[in-house]
Amino acid sequence: MRTLYTYFRSSAAWRVRIALAHKGLPYEAAPIHLLRDGGEQKSARYLALNPQGLVPALADGAQVLSQSLAICEYLDERYPDTPALLPADLLERAKVRALAYAIACDIHPINNLRVLQYLKGKLGHSQDEVDEWYLHWIRTGFVGLEAELARLGSQRFCVGEAVSLADICLVPQVFNARRFQLDLSPFPHIVAVDAALSGLAAFADTHPSWQPDTE
Amino acid sequence: MRTLYTYFRSSAAWRVRIALAHKGLPYEAAPIHLLRDGGEQKSARYLALNPQGLVPALADGAQVLSQSLAICEYLDERYPDTPALLPADLLERAKVRALAYAIACDIHPINNLRVLQYLKGKLGHSQDEVDEWYLHWIRTGFVGLEAELARLGSQRFCVGEAVSLADICLVPQVFNARRFQLDLSPFPHIVAVDAALSGLAAFADTHPSWQPDTE
Repeated sequence: MRTLYTYFRSSAAWRVRIALAHKGLPYEAAPIHLLRDGGEQKSARYLALNPQGLVPALADGAQVLSQSLAICEYLDERYPDTPALLPADLLERAKVRALAYAIACDIHPINNLRVLQYLKGKLGHSQDEVDEWYLHWIRTGFVGLEAELARLGSQRFCVGEAVSLADICLVPQVFNARRFQLDLSPFPHIVAVDAALSGLAAFADTHPSWQPDTE
Repeated sequence: MRTLYTYFRSSAAWRVRIALAHKGLPYEAAPIHLLRDGGEQKSARYLALNPQGLVPALADGAQVLSQSLAICEYLDERYPDTPALLPADLLERAKVRALAYAIACDIHPINNLRVLQYLKGKLGHSQDEVDEWYLHWIRTGFVGLEAELARLGSQRFCVGEAVSLADICLVPQVFNARRFQLDLSPFPHIVAVDAALSGLAAFADTHPSWQPDTE
């Protein structure tokens, strides 16, 4: 049996929920509340599973895997008969991974909860300044991403007509952008791809609004 | 011919330099100065190559690839007869990628030059506060990484006895830690793996101190 340690609002956890749903791999959700009791991800019990103290983690039998993109690549390699998250062509694979990392490395971690907590707690910034920080890094990343998607041309999803690792990263990031009311009008390609993806069951059913731990 | 758009002190560029050297793949270095003229990575000429405006990028024939880890995975897939950056076993591959992302997603981007510039310029923090920020995120990441390496047990490199993507991320991050004088005594496994790797030609020859654009 598979157990996903997840938090309804975590973008990284949502990525893995999408991957599992897209591949039709069932799992049990084990919610880890990132705010309660100072953050359950910092508890001794969770750190014994994932010493990095971050969500998600996936227990697949006796093995515990961490890092959302490593989990997705593992699922892709472990279950080759399920829908692939990477295309076959090498250059397209590189393009998918580059777009995924442009979000997962260069936008998301800078806006992670613990970073926002440091800005407010340790550095004493106001909520307005924290919100501006949040929007700045999404906007900066989306400018590059929009240019990449525009260059790739007209297509249904980030790269071509099949759901990929890049799409799995895009939708949670757009959700965050909307949650913080980013003006998305300069990013028509991003908005179009997000709309095409959001109708798919693997994305809709795993949405933060519909999780067992949703508040 | 291959051209690597690089900056001597960029950790992400150093990762690709290590991968190319480890695989014995020759390339021409095209230095992009991250500070000169407000940052050459923001020039129209470079943005035409890499709309994300980040270093490195690799031109392989007519194709331009971005994102250091996507480039490394591409090189691994494109040149399967060169030394691999990922082990064959699926769980070990997942472990290598998780350690690589623990650095490349959860430490490095939070300390990237543009983030430090925002902290100083936009938010008006002192150099001392910026240094404390820098050290905080390396220390936080290294606590988890040290626990992971300790759990993996006695081995030469991050995962087993062969150089992997995790090692390629580790050495530049330890270099940064030393540059900002982080106390590494709580991290004996990290220090030991870094020492074992640093003697290898692929790591030593690509060091920031020995690049064409080193100042």
